[in-house]
Amino acid sequence: MSLYGAVEAGGTKFLCAVGTGPDHLEAILRIPTTTPDETLARVIAFFRPFAGALKAIGIGSFGPLDLDPTSPTFGTIPTTPKPGWSGTNLLWPFQEAFGIPIGLTTDVQAAALGEGRWGAAQGLHTFVYLTVGTGIGGGAIVHGRMLHGVWHPEMGHIRIPHDWERDPFPGVCPFHGDCLEGLASGPAMAARWGQPPEALPPDHPAWELEAEYLALGLVNILCILTPQRILLGGGVAQHPGLLPRVRERMRALLNRYLPAPALEGDLETYVMPPALGERAGLLGALALAMEMAS
Amino acid sequence: MSLYGAVEAGGTKFLCAVGTGPDHLEAILRIPTTTPDETLARVIAFFRPFAGALKAIGIGSFGPLDLDPTSPTFGTIPTTPKPGWSGTNLLWPFQEAFGIPIGLTTDVQAAALGEGRWGAAQGLHTFVYLTVGTGIGGGAIVHGRMLHGVWHPEMGHIRIPHDWERDPFPGVCPFHGDCLEGLASGPAMAARWGQPPEALPPDHPAWELEAEYLALGLVNILCILTPQRILLGGGVAQHPGLLPRVRERMRALLNRYLPAPALEGDLETYVMPPALGERAGLLGALALAMEMAS
Repeated sequence: MSLYGAVEAGGTKFLCAVGTGPDHLEAILRIPTTTPDETLARVIAFFRPFAGALKAIGIGSFGPLDLDPTSPTFGTIPTTPKPGWSGTNLLWPFQEAFGIPIGLTTDVQAAALGEGRWGAAQGLHTFVYLTVGTGIGGGAIVHGRMLHGVWHPEMGHIRIPHDWERDPFPGVCPFHGDCLEGLASGPAMAARWGQPPEALPPDHPAWELEAEYLALGLVNILCILTPQRILLGGGVAQHPGLLPRVRERMRALLNRYLPAPALEGDLETYVMPPALGERAGLLGALALAMEMAS
Repeated sequence: MSLYGAVEAGGTKFLCAVGTGPDHLEAILRIPTTTPDETLARVIAFFRPFAGALKAIGIGSFGPLDLDPTSPTFGTIPTTPKPGWSGTNLLWPFQEAFGIPIGLTTDVQAAALGEGRWGAAQGLHTFVYLTVGTGIGGGAIVHGRMLHGVWHPEMGHIRIPHDWERDPFPGVCPFHGDCLEGLASGPAMAARWGQPPEALPPDHPAWELEAEYLALGLVNILCILTPQRILLGGGVAQHPGLLPRVRERMRALLNRYLPAPALEGDLETYVMPPALGERAGLLGALALAMEMAS
């Protein structure tokens, strides 16, 4: 029997699974993220009993990641504020332990892959998964393949209009100040309003502003990448009432400029929540493993 | 002998060519854009003598274009301010006249294709051609193929930060006001400064502002699409001294966030002028024809 391994590598936890699909997972394990050595050893120990059946392992990881196969640091996290993890190679330990194909991509690219295979982007060839939570990150499948050019996408760091009169908050991104992530991530909302987003009621002006910023980001993604659909995931994006407001602002900003049928109406099937919810990343890693093995 | 046909369809002129490459063009003709019937009849008349040898024709056209093969209006210009051209089908007349494969894409997607085959993007799989002139438009090749998702790219219409104190000009885009094209196209510069861009000397503050807007646009394209290179074409972009300023502002805006080797240094090989110059669109249409036939 063929099995596939999946790892969703996060800054606070690693999720691991073995199986063949969303409804066929043999085992799942949640490991707190400590040091690279300890964490990766526990992940490998999890997969060890399945070694004979495992055909490939897919990893969706927090970034940044060096995903250029010609780079001497291919497979590493070059630099991260996460103590001890800068320079960690995520591929070698698994290649050494199991001698099978190991796929590596960002957590959001993995989530996009998962949604394409089993979720809300089935049948589409070009789409985006954008997560809005502690950060903002985007993954993209283009013509059926994970997008990778000079680097992996870093959609949270685009620049959008920032009306300083309406919103004097300078943004929280340590690199760019008021990029999209700097203005609209969970920590940005918390810093601006003095309470975490989940504590802000749906009628709080925070959500009007949040919808505006996300809509501006989505319009830019649409005009540049032309996805057939955008999936909006992450904790902040799931706040009741936010998604319809984002669609409404997006429609207003587009102003009927693009005559594609999918962009007519209220955008209900254009900007959608992910179908796999919090499992998108892990299942995407599984989908990646299945791609690697085929 | 096999020949390929190329058409660059513009709002003021159509350029047509027959040949097999940049150095092997048998014939070139320039036709003023009048009515669709008259213009297309002249283009067809140009190709007629080569009909026996023509394997395919590629067309790079002004837009918007319906490029969805499943759409009932596939191959048309749905709506354009150009009198008489709304609803014109650019494919049928050629298919009917010659019965060979006809390829259609936007002028900037064609230019990107041409630069990839013979110009400044040879050997790259994912790159962008952005033109800055009477409008701003972007074409993209992703993983070796012309990008097309829900629509073709409309990169000129992204929203970027607009500092109203520094630049109270409201923008010229009839749909979006101060989108990138609204702020940074040739007509935007002319309206803001009271003289056309080519009349503004290199030390005029117009160019500092122009560099800022273009750099903001390029940063967004980079973060979303991750091109391996961006080619900056069009009349405005060729102004002496502009390109180095754009690179400089782009470096400052990126703030070393993306650790890709190609983004280190002064970006001289990352943001480049097109190598085919004004012939990029026509040669791209030729490259498209060669793709269609193969």
